[in-house]
Amino acid sequence: MQITSLENERVKKYCRLKEKKYRDQENQFIVEGNHLVEEAYRAGLIDEVILEIGEECSFNVPIVFVTKEIIAKITTLESPPTILALCHKKEMKESLGNKILILDEIQDPGNLGTMIRSSKAFHIDSIVLGEGCVDFYNPKVLRSTQGMIFHSNIVTAKIEGLIPKLKKENIVVYGTRVESGIDIRTIKKEKKEKFALIMGNEGNGVHQEILELCDEYLYIPMSEEVESLNVAIATSILLYEFDRR
Amino acid sequence: MQITSLENERVKKYCRLKEKKYRDQENQFIVEGNHLVEEAYRAGLIDEVILEIGEECSFNVPIVFVTKEIIAKITTLESPPTILALCHKKEMKESLGNKILILDEIQDPGNLGTMIRSSKAFHIDSIVLGEGCVDFYNPKVLRSTQGMIFHSNIVTAKIEGLIPKLKKENIVVYGTRVESGIDIRTIKKEKKEKFALIMGNEGNGVHQEILELCDEYLYIPMSEEVESLNVAIATSILLYEFDRR
Repeated sequence: MQITSLENERVKKYCRLKEKKYRDQENQFIVEGNHLVEEAYRAGLIDEVILEIGEECSFNVPIVFVTKEIIAKITTLESPPTILALCHKKEMKESLGNKILILDEIQDPGNLGTMIRSSKAFHIDSIVLGEGCVDFYNPKVLRSTQGMIFHSNIVTAKIEGLIPKLKKENIVVYGTRVESGIDIRTIKKEKKEKFALIMGNEGNGVHQEILELCDEYLYIPMSEEVESLNVAIATSILLYEFDRR
Repeated sequence: MQITSLENERVKKYCRLKEKKYRDQENQFIVEGNHLVEEAYRAGLIDEVILEIGEECSFNVPIVFVTKEIIAKITTLESPPTILALCHKKEMKESLGNKILILDEIQDPGNLGTMIRSSKAFHIDSIVLGEGCVDFYNPKVLRSTQGMIFHSNIVTAKIEGLIPKLKKENIVVYGTRVESGIDIRTIKKEKKEKFALIMGNEGNGVHQEILELCDEYLYIPMSEEVESLNVAIATSILLYEFDRR
């Protein structure tokens, strides 16, 4: 198929998917650029490739050829790529596994994306997004994950309701706080096998009522001159330490 | 002093400082919002506070009152703050100390900012920016550092020229690479006292000719499914590990 009109209904549909509302409604999303399209293909998520006329693509999926102008209209990138793909959302596993990262109101897409990437690097089984988190099919999140999102188990849930269930499964629920916490360098091996780590909003941290439900509290030792680390940095250091043997 | 005209020469000067060229020429820069203005004040860098008419400010520096519209014109923030400050650049120390972070062509302002913040947290003495790095007085960098930039020693230098000098001072120069490197969890205590860590560009890593000058190479152990971490994340984990006793 080839489309040359900017007013084509299919083009309009692709554009609508920039909004979370339509991504949720259609259960679809767009990925942009070679690397992400390839990762989405490997994960079996592509419904159709959207390709600039004249370009080639070896994937075994339907291809819609479009003009440069149409790609420029669909993309959220400043320099439009030659390839995009319409994908269906990944089916996530209900079982969360033994190593869980829980995110409470993370709002910056770049932060969420790098946290998803670090989670994969340090063997996290599932990521739980609480209410108020940025949508993980947001184009900026997808880019920051470098495609790792397609190979991660990510679910949304109400955190307050989830914690008691985790505790029943003997998963230790960790929060972070500066005072009267445990130095992360001293967590015992056996407490690194089944855990859930809760990290909170960029400005305000984890909600107080959620923090109170935690079993233990951790802190990262650092210079007193610094109030805090960026949340994606802190999360990655914590996950690195949990992954340490 | 009070300014109400958008065409005022002083307002034009403030606006020009959005560009690196003028920041270099004037040796000045603008900080935006309460938190950063406060940190700049603590560091003694403020030449004058730029305050919205009707607001109050207790700092002992000249104040220029301006309209909301003028602030909106000067600021790079989407929601204009009520306070800005014109600052002079910090004088940096020539001596780099024993713990040095060297950055080769880091281009993302958010990455540079969080790396500066993490450096302070993990007791780095100086940060060296090689050619091609984003300007550290860029407004987005300033914001991401959360003010830590005013309390850090940051210099620019040609990296190839600097490395031999560091080696003469018995500073171990570390690069990172995935193959045939040292697992960062196994660095010996005595090799954590005097070191320079070189981190490279978001897409391409450290330049080959610089990498070849390093004494040793490090890697962060992680899942094979992940190609790499975000550079600010990798840097912070490395610095955290160097700071580990």
